[in-house]
Amino acid sequence: MNIELINTGAELLVGRVLNTHQQWLCRQLTDLGYEVTRQVCVPDGSGAIQAAVREAMSRADLVIATGGLGPTSDDLTRDAIAQLLGQRLILHPPTLAWIEQFFSQRRRPMPASVQVQAMIPENALVLPNPNGTAPGLAMESVAGKQWIVLLPGPPRELRPMFLESVVPLLHRVFPLSSKFLCLTFKTTGLGESVVEEKIAGPLQVLVAAGLELAYCARVGEVDVRIAARGDSTENLLAATEKIIRDLLGPVIFGTGDDSLESVVVQSLTARGETLAVAESCTGGFLANRLTNVPGASAVFLGGVVTYSNQAKQDILGVPSETLRDHGAVSKAVARAMAEGARRVFKSDYALAVTGIAGPGGGTGEKPVGTAFVALATKQDTTVHLLYSPVDRETFKFVVSQKSLDLLRVAQMGRPSPDNS
Amino acid sequence: MNIELINTGAELLVGRVLNTHQQWLCRQLTDLGYEVTRQVCVPDGSGAIQAAVREAMSRADLVIATGGLGPTSDDLTRDAIAQLLGQRLILHPPTLAWIEQFFSQRRRPMPASVQVQAMIPENALVLPNPNGTAPGLAMESVAGKQWIVLLPGPPRELRPMFLESVVPLLHRVFPLSSKFLCLTFKTTGLGESVVEEKIAGPLQVLVAAGLELAYCARVGEVDVRIAARGDSTENLLAATEKIIRDLLGPVIFGTGDDSLESVVVQSLTARGETLAVAESCTGGFLANRLTNVPGASAVFLGGVVTYSNQAKQDILGVPSETLRDHGAVSKAVARAMAEGARRVFKSDYALAVTGIAGPGGGTGEKPVGTAFVALATKQDTTVHLLYSPVDRETFKFVVSQKSLDLLRVAQMGRPSPDNS
Repeated sequence: MNIELINTGAELLVGRVLNTHQQWLCRQLTDLGYEVTRQVCVPDGSGAIQAAVREAMSRADLVIATGGLGPTSDDLTRDAIAQLLGQRLILHPPTLAWIEQFFSQRRRPMPASVQVQAMIPENALVLPNPNGTAPGLAMESVAGKQWIVLLPGPPRELRPMFLESVVPLLHRVFPLSSKFLCLTFKTTGLGESVVEEKIAGPLQVLVAAGLELAYCARVGEVDVRIAARGDSTENLLAATEKIIRDLLGPVIFGTGDDSLESVVVQSLTARGETLAVAESCTGGFLANRLTNVPGASAVFLGGVVTYSNQAKQDILGVPSETLRDHGAVSKAVARAMAEGARRVFKSDYALAVTGIAGPGGGTGEKPVGTAFVALATKQDTTVHLLYSPVDRETFKFVVSQKSLDLLRVAQMGRPSPDNS
Repeated sequence: MNIELINTGAELLVGRVLNTHQQWLCRQLTDLGYEVTRQVCVPDGSGAIQAAVREAMSRADLVIATGGLGPTSDDLTRDAIAQLLGQRLILHPPTLAWIEQFFSQRRRPMPASVQVQAMIPENALVLPNPNGTAPGLAMESVAGKQWIVLLPGPPRELRPMFLESVVPLLHRVFPLSSKFLCLTFKTTGLGESVVEEKIAGPLQVLVAAGLELAYCARVGEVDVRIAARGDSTENLLAATEKIIRDLLGPVIFGTGDDSLESVVVQSLTARGETLAVAESCTGGFLANRLTNVPGASAVFLGGVVTYSNQAKQDILGVPSETLRDHGAVSKAVARAMAEGARRVFKSDYALAVTGIAGPGGGTGEKPVGTAFVALATKQDTTVHLLYSPVDRETFKFVVSQKSLDLLRVAQMGRPSPDNS
C-alpha cells in the first residue's frame, strides 16, 4: 500500500509559503502505519495537476492532493480531477445549504462565486468541512483500483478534515494487513550518534525480530521512534521501551508530541509550583516557549527581558559591582539574575540566561556563542556554562532548551512540596 | 528554461522535519528570474533517486537535488547520479585535502568514512563547501542538454553554496534571454482582497505591457510582488512602484526581506530612540521578535512578561484598583502597563499588550481573541482594541504585529528628536 502526496499551488513553487502540509500529513500517515513514498508540488494549472495525478496513480494505491478547491480562478483541482476521471460535476444540495449557512451565520453576503464549491464529481464521496466552505472529496479511479482524496489548502480546514473523515476512510478502504503500533521518545542533551551508540547494540536482536527503529535529530533534540507490526506488536514494543528507558534514563523528557516546555509546565502544575524567568540573550524566547503551552498561566508568573545593564540593576537588583567586576555575561550575573527574578516574582523557581548571541559583541575571552544559564530554587542556585557558536535564532533555542532542561532535571531529583 | 527540484531524505516523507529547502531555493530562483516548475520529494534509495532524476530530466533543463551527499550508509545521491550518468567516481585530491584540514582545524579525528565525500564523478564540477565536508556537484547530462546540481542537506551548507557557486553557474550556463527585475512590497493592516482591489485596476494597463503582478497573503501580512523582463524593465517597475506607493501609502512597511520588527529596529536606530515592552497575552513573543533583529540591543532596552496581576502591580506599578475595577484585560490596564514599562526602563517608547489567547479564560463580555494594545510616548498614550479568535500561537503573532505597527505608524508622523 503506497501513498503519494500532491501539493498544488503556485505560491509553493515561487517560495512565498512554506509547505507545512507535507510534514503534517506525512507524520499522521506514518504514525497510522502507512507509507508515503513520494511527495510532489505542482503549480495551479489543469494540465500540471492532471499530469501529476496520472503519474502518481500509475504507482500508488492512494493519492492525496491538497489545495485548489476554493472559489477563485486559480482553484482548478476539482475540475481537473473530475475531467481526468471522466466524472461530470453535479450540484450537491447539502453542500450548497452548508455554504449558505456558513455565510449567514457570519452575517456576511455570499458571493455567487462560492457556489462552485457545491459542484461535486458525480461519484465522489463528500468530506464535510466544519471550518470552511470547500468540502473535501474522495473518489475511486476508473479502474476502481486507486483512490484519490482532495483536501482544501488552509491548514485549519485540512487538518480536522483529515482526522475526522480521511482516517476512517483509510481504515475502511485500506485496512492494515496486521496490527501496527508506534511510539516516539523525545530526548535532549545527547547527540544523535551518542544516542544511537547507547541503544542500537542492545536493540539489535529486537530489530531482527521485526522492530522498526529510527532516529531523527533536530537542534537540541533527538527523537527515537520505534514501531512494529503483527500480533506480538505490544510485547515487542514493551520490551523495547524497557531497554530504551533503562539505557537513556533521564535523557528522555517525553513521548509523542511532548515538547520540553509542555513537560516542564505539566510537571510544575502537578507539583503546584511556580516559575519566573530572567532573560538577556534569549530576549523573550524562553518566556515565549513557556507561554505557548495552554494553561501555562497557572504556573508561569512572568519574566523579565533585561537587555540593558540598567534594567538588570533596576528590576532584578543585580549589583552594579557584580556587573562591573564580572561583566554582563558571567556566572555571577546569571546567578544574581535568577535570584533576583525569584525574589521579584515570588516564585518557587527562577531561570536566568545571559550570553552573546552575535553576530556582534564577542571577545577573545567570551566569544559569540557563550552563555550562562542559572536555576534558582528555594535551596540553592546552580549555574551552567554553554558554548554554542550558531546563528542568532538557533542560539536562542539552544540556550532556552538547556535552561528548561536544568529545571526538568532538578525537579526529577526532588520530592513534591507539601503545599496544596 | 525549466527547473525542477528534488529533495531526498526519508525524514521528509515520515514527517519528522519540515522541508525548508523548497521554500528557500524556490524563492531564490524566482527572484533571479528563473521558473521552478515542479518539486518532488523521494526517500533515500538509489532506485527512487534515479527514477526521480530521470523523470525530471525528461522535462527540465536544470535539475537541483538536495541531500544524500554525506558519509553515512543512507547518503546515496552521489553514487546514484554518477551511475545514472555513466560516470566513474574518482578521488579528487583538493577535496580530500579540504576534508582533512576541516577535521584537523577542529582538532577532531577524521573517521575513514568521510573520505567517500572526496570521490567525485569524473566529469563533475566541484562546488566548494566552506561550511562542511561534502562538496556540491554540477554535471551535464550525457546528451549535454541538461544540467544536474547536487547540494548538501544541511541548510548552513546548502545556502552559502547556492549563493556562491550555483548562482554564477546559472548565469553562465543558463543566461536569461532578457533583463529581469523584481521587487516585493511588504504590507500589513489590510486583507489580500482589499490590497488587490486598490491596485489591480490602476495597474491593468501595465500588466498588459508585461508587468508580472502577484499577491501572497500570510497571517497579518500581504506581499505584493512585481516583476518584469526586457529592455524597458526599469521604467516599467519604476512606474509600477509609483502607483503602488501612491495607492497603498503607509500600508507598505518595507520591501524584500524586511520584517516589521527589522523595520521598527532600523527606524529606532536611525532616530536614536529606545523601546521597552510589557506583555501579558503575547508572553514574550513581542520581545522575541524584536531581539531576533541583529543590533536590537542598541535600541531595545528590555521587556516584562507579566502573566500574574501581582507582577503587573509590583514591576509595572499598575494600580490594584485599576486591575480590580477594569480587569486585567482592559484599556485602562493596557495603558498603565505601557506607561509603567516606559517609566521602569526609562525608554522613549513603550508597547504593552494584554488579552485572552485562549483556549481558556474567555467571558461573554471579553471572549477569547480579545486584546488591548497600547503605545506610550513622551507625549501621550494610545490604546487599540483587537479581536482575533485564532489559535494561541497565531494570536501572539497577530497581537504583536498590531503593536509593532502602532509604533511604526506613530514614528512616521513625528519628526526625529534632536538628541544625538
